[in-house]
Amino acid sequence: MSPEQSPDAEPLTDDPRPDGLRSATSLLLVHTGDGKGKSSSAFGVMLRALALDWKVAVVQFIKSGDWKVGEEQMGVQLGVDWNSFGDGFTWDSNNLEQDRAHAAEGWGRAKALIEAGEHRLVILDELTYLCTWSWVDIDEVVSTLANRPDHVNVVVTGRDAPQALIDIADTVTEMREVKHAYQQGIRAKRGIDY
Amino acid sequence: MSPEQSPDAEPLTDDPRPDGLRSATSLLLVHTGDGKGKSSSAFGVMLRALALDWKVAVVQFIKSGDWKVGEEQMGVQLGVDWNSFGDGFTWDSNNLEQDRAHAAEGWGRAKALIEAGEHRLVILDELTYLCTWSWVDIDEVVSTLANRPDHVNVVVTGRDAPQALIDIADTVTEMREVKHAYQQGIRAKRGIDY
Repeated sequence: MSPEQSPDAEPLTDDPRPDGLRSATSLLLVHTGDGKGKSSSAFGVMLRALALDWKVAVVQFIKSGDWKVGEEQMGVQLGVDWNSFGDGFTWDSNNLEQDRAHAAEGWGRAKALIEAGEHRLVILDELTYLCTWSWVDIDEVVSTLANRPDHVNVVVTGRDAPQALIDIADTVTEMREVKHAYQQGIRAKRGIDY
Repeated sequence: MSPEQSPDAEPLTDDPRPDGLRSATSLLLVHTGDGKGKSSSAFGVMLRALALDWKVAVVQFIKSGDWKVGEEQMGVQLGVDWNSFGDGFTWDSNNLEQDRAHAAEGWGRAKALIEAGEHRLVILDELTYLCTWSWVDIDEVVSTLANRPDHVNVVVTGRDAPQALIDIADTVTEMREVKHAYQQGIRAKRGIDY
C-alpha cells in the first residue's frame, strides 16, 4: 500500500493534514480526563470499525449492570464481542477483594483477546482505574499494548491515564469537564448519559 | 415521574452522585475543544438513545462525503435520520459562497427538525464552526436551542463553542489534545479516525 493512499486506495482529499504521513498498521488511542465522553467516543470509534466489518471486542472493567446498558445492547446487536467485568462502581463497593479479583480476571481476558489478534479493534473501557489502584501490573499492561499484533487497534478509556501508557499511545485526548448538568442539580439521564 | 426515578422507573442504584437531583426532561450537551472525540462521543450518545428506541436525527454541517462514512453508514443502518451538509472541509474550499449557502440550508433543516419535536435526540455535528464564521446567527441558534421542545435532547459538537452556547448548555466537555498520531507522522486511519 502506498503511503499516499488510504487503505481502500481512495485519496484522502478531505484530509487537511500535511502530505507524506505514513500509514500506521494500527493505533493505540487513550481517552482520559475528568470530563464526559471518554467511553462514548470509544463507542463512536466502534461504529467506524463496524462499518468496515472489523471484528470488535469490548472489555469493560468498572461499570456494568444497568449503567452502560445502551452501549452494550447496541454493541451486542451489531456483533461486538462484549465482556463485562466489575460490579457497579467500585467506590460504592462493599466487597473490595471480589472487585479486585473480578478486575484481574477482566485484564486476563483483555490480554488474551489482544494477543490472539482476532479482533481489529479492542476497547478497554475504564482500564486506567485498575492501573491507578495497582489492581493490574502497569508494566504488563504497557508491554501487552506495546507488543500487540500489528493489526490490532486499541482504545483505552478512564481518568488519570498513567504516563507510561500515554508514552506509548499514538493519540491521547483529555476530556475536560467545563460544566456538568449535575452541578445544576440535574441527575444522569437515561438515553444520554447511560 | 418522580424526581427519584429514572424515566423507566428503575432506581439509579449505580449512580454515585448525590440524592435529590432533579430529572431534566431533556439535556443540551456541548462537545468542544481542539482534541479528538467531539463527534465520536456524540455518536456514542446516539447508540444509547437508539437502545431506547428513540428517534434520532443527525445534521452534519462541515464534514461529509468520504470523511464520516462509517458513522453515517451505521447510523442509517440503525434508522437514524441522517442529514449531511457541507462539502468536505471548508478550509480546503474553492467555493466559499456555495459552502456558506449549504451551511445555512443545513441550519434551516436543523432548526426545523428541533422545532418539529419528532426526534428525542438531535445531533448537530460541527455546528460551532458556522457560529465562529458568522454563517449563522448565533442569537437564533441559542434561541432555537433554549426554546426547543421539552423532550428534545441536543448534542452540539465543534471547536470554539461560543460562550452564549456554553451558557445555556447543561453539560460542556472540552476535548483537549494531549498527543496526536499525526505529530508522529502518522496519517488518519480509516476505521479509527473516520
